[in-house]
Amino acid sequence: MRKPIFMAGAIAASVFSLSPMLSAQEVSEKTIENAKTLRAAALRDNSAYDILESLTTEVGPRPAGSEADKLAIKWGIEKFKSLGFDKVWTEPVKHTGWARVLESAVVKSPFVQPLQITALGGSVSTPEGGLDAEIVHFNSFEDLQAAERSEVEGKIVFISNRMARTRDGSGYGPANIARRSGADETARKGGLAVLIRSIGTDSHRLPHTGQMAYAGDVEKVPAAALSNPDADLLERIFKRGKPVKISLRVETKDLGPIETANVIGEITGREKPDEVVVIGGHLDSWDLGTGAIDDGAGVALTVATADLIKRTIKERPRRTIRVIMFGAEEVGLVGARQYAEAHKDEIPNTHIIGAESDFGAGKIWALASKVSTNSQHVIDKMAQLMGPLGVIRAEVEAGGGPDVGRIGDKGMPVVDLKQDGTDYFDLHHTADDTLDKVDPEALRQNLAAWSIFAYIAAEWPGDFR
Amino acid sequence: MRKPIFMAGAIAASVFSLSPMLSAQEVSEKTIENAKTLRAAALRDNSAYDILESLTTEVGPRPAGSEADKLAIKWGIEKFKSLGFDKVWTEPVKHTGWARVLESAVVKSPFVQPLQITALGGSVSTPEGGLDAEIVHFNSFEDLQAAERSEVEGKIVFISNRMARTRDGSGYGPANIARRSGADETARKGGLAVLIRSIGTDSHRLPHTGQMAYAGDVEKVPAAALSNPDADLLERIFKRGKPVKISLRVETKDLGPIETANVIGEITGREKPDEVVVIGGHLDSWDLGTGAIDDGAGVALTVATADLIKRTIKERPRRTIRVIMFGAEEVGLVGARQYAEAHKDEIPNTHIIGAESDFGAGKIWALASKVSTNSQHVIDKMAQLMGPLGVIRAEVEAGGGPDVGRIGDKGMPVVDLKQDGTDYFDLHHTADDTLDKVDPEALRQNLAAWSIFAYIAAEWPGDFR
Repeated sequence: MRKPIFMAGAIAASVFSLSPMLSAQEVSEKTIENAKTLRAAALRDNSAYDILESLTTEVGPRPAGSEADKLAIKWGIEKFKSLGFDKVWTEPVKHTGWARVLESAVVKSPFVQPLQITALGGSVSTPEGGLDAEIVHFNSFEDLQAAERSEVEGKIVFISNRMARTRDGSGYGPANIARRSGADETARKGGLAVLIRSIGTDSHRLPHTGQMAYAGDVEKVPAAALSNPDADLLERIFKRGKPVKISLRVETKDLGPIETANVIGEITGREKPDEVVVIGGHLDSWDLGTGAIDDGAGVALTVATADLIKRTIKERPRRTIRVIMFGAEEVGLVGARQYAEAHKDEIPNTHIIGAESDFGAGKIWALASKVSTNSQHVIDKMAQLMGPLGVIRAEVEAGGGPDVGRIGDKGMPVVDLKQDGTDYFDLHHTADDTLDKVDPEALRQNLAAWSIFAYIAAEWPGDFR
Repeated sequence: MRKPIFMAGAIAASVFSLSPMLSAQEVSEKTIENAKTLRAAALRDNSAYDILESLTTEVGPRPAGSEADKLAIKWGIEKFKSLGFDKVWTEPVKHTGWARVLESAVVKSPFVQPLQITALGGSVSTPEGGLDAEIVHFNSFEDLQAAERSEVEGKIVFISNRMARTRDGSGYGPANIARRSGADETARKGGLAVLIRSIGTDSHRLPHTGQMAYAGDVEKVPAAALSNPDADLLERIFKRGKPVKISLRVETKDLGPIETANVIGEITGREKPDEVVVIGGHLDSWDLGTGAIDDGAGVALTVATADLIKRTIKERPRRTIRVIMFGAEEVGLVGARQYAEAHKDEIPNTHIIGAESDFGAGKIWALASKVSTNSQHVIDKMAQLMGPLGVIRAEVEAGGGPDVGRIGDKGMPVVDLKQDGTDYFDLHHTADDTLDKVDPEALRQNLAAWSIFAYIAAEWPGDFR
């Protein structure tokens, strides 16, 4: 499908020379009326929840490259087709696969206590028979960095830093360095394995997984996360001041090269079919839960958005709305990177604007953008229409999200429909990421905001660049 | 230790003939002042939390008859001794042991979905290699009872009734019949195994265990509980109207005869050492969590209560305060029943009044009693002193709790210090029963109320019968 789009993009580029003039153009009264109609319809519409119910019930956990991932791709194609999308196709995504086999940990002394752990994505296995060793405690990754080799050598490392709860998820990045780089730092000092406190804000015995990576310049050691109550327990045991020994077993599997896909559906534009508004989320999930909030909700919302516009407004919007279910996001934004690379030449010409839903199923509270000064007024108008939904216009620059942001890197303007993520990291990457955590009313509010954005972006004739 | 107590009881009986006169007696000003001193001291005192921290950190899960149970008994003896209790001893408790080995369940068709389950206490194992069978859904135990044999025969049964959330835990009993009797009813109709929705009010992927029993008149079939999100998922799968097949594996172990103990510590009364006020909780826990709310909190609170009185009030109270850490509660109130049976002759003479803490670590909101009309005014005075803690006088009759209630059955008056159990069944019998769930401030409020009760009960000279 890439070639025709690229050619159309070349034609579109000439049309775009008109854009400064068009950008000054107000959003038409008719467009605003249609956006209000969509907003009202969305607040009565359960289609996003129904799509999410279908994905989590009929597919369930779907890590990239697994049998369930293949079923998810099939599900995505069927969902687009059954909803009557105008075009449906997949684009291949290549990566390497990894699977969890088993994991267990027990404190052996000074007290015997079983621990709830989960291997981090990409972790190697412990040696045959597991590891029995002393464990040494660091309050942070920085403390581990500052440690002498003699403190770590021949031991298992425990890093216990806590993630802060915030609405915007800003506690995640700083805490996450332990997950991303804890294994390498441990190996550099001769450590045997690393156990981190879960990167999560809850207090349940459900550890949080997530991708880690090896730099490749040092031995690969196993990496796993303790649930937060187990990390608390281990800290309390360390407070007794006695040597702590644990027994650790992690077994994982390198699946070698895998092929997965980005699944794409379009509502074709009536006037400018080759100009696309990109919306989407990621189809793959971690293996522990059923990927309801991460990111079934994002897939369901963006599919439902295009479908609602199609069902509610008589004529197709001026431009194409392209919904992308990205593949292999959890293992490194792989589907998005490969999409951005494959389409990099036409993105500046054809990818008008984009947004992603990948921060759970909480309500949207702000609209941020990274668009031309000339088109700010359109985003302002969208925010104004979202006002009754409790959405404000954010001053910060949009990033576009983990996947759509990669297309943004290639020159596509982006907006962020910012969700309240206060509780997101209670569930993120755990077995608890299941449908019961999703509030149908919050999904309807999301759908209303998304419909306003996607419809106006596709209908307004100007340029966001 | 039983004989001396019994003899002392006989002597006490003659003293008790004075009781109608003494019962009319007001609680003295000095006793009230001391109770107020205790209340104030308790609200600044973290000893209950510290004891609970010690038990959950140094012992952890302690199912009756396990190695950890033996450590818990040792811990209990040491705790009483280190706190300077006047007398410390154990009384043997005999029962049969059971242990969980492994458990797993996967929906095989129409969709593949792993399920989180846990075996119910006492369940037998599935046959070698597990069970692969169709599963049939009933909304309630009553629906299963009403079913034809042909609907159940050769199948696994799923009972999905939900437990209601209430402050007083009244939703537990009605829901629990599926746990208690689901296996027998399944077997009676030729079913292979039973899976119940967890008897719990949370929505986390942490199934609730709990004791089940076989009547013995029918084949024993395995029984396990699904976490609530998994029960939701299974219900959604059933809604598709297609046959549902699952693969179920439960492996458990009959440990044969075990010996555990009631661990008992006393603060000896200065005037009537053979008259005892009984307080306590149970020392054993389920194997999944560390038994923080069930019932480490009850043990910690009642130990701390006697200790606080000993530390705070210059002279020992008139009567003995006996703290009992009951053994083998989870598997059928075994320690309490054996205590009640062993002491049944002296209980009416020596066991003046009792109360139990076994409903989590929530705040106390009401004081109920089952005492003589002549001594109601003393309980009223206790409630009045607990008023500033947010405690009201309950109109309902006290039951004494699962363990102390068994001593009540033998003629001991009882009170209930009723805790707010709104969230108790979110954690009850799950891996999530851990220290982080306990609010130290709520424990201090409990300690204040318990100190008022135990001190006045031991100091007031009258009779509660």
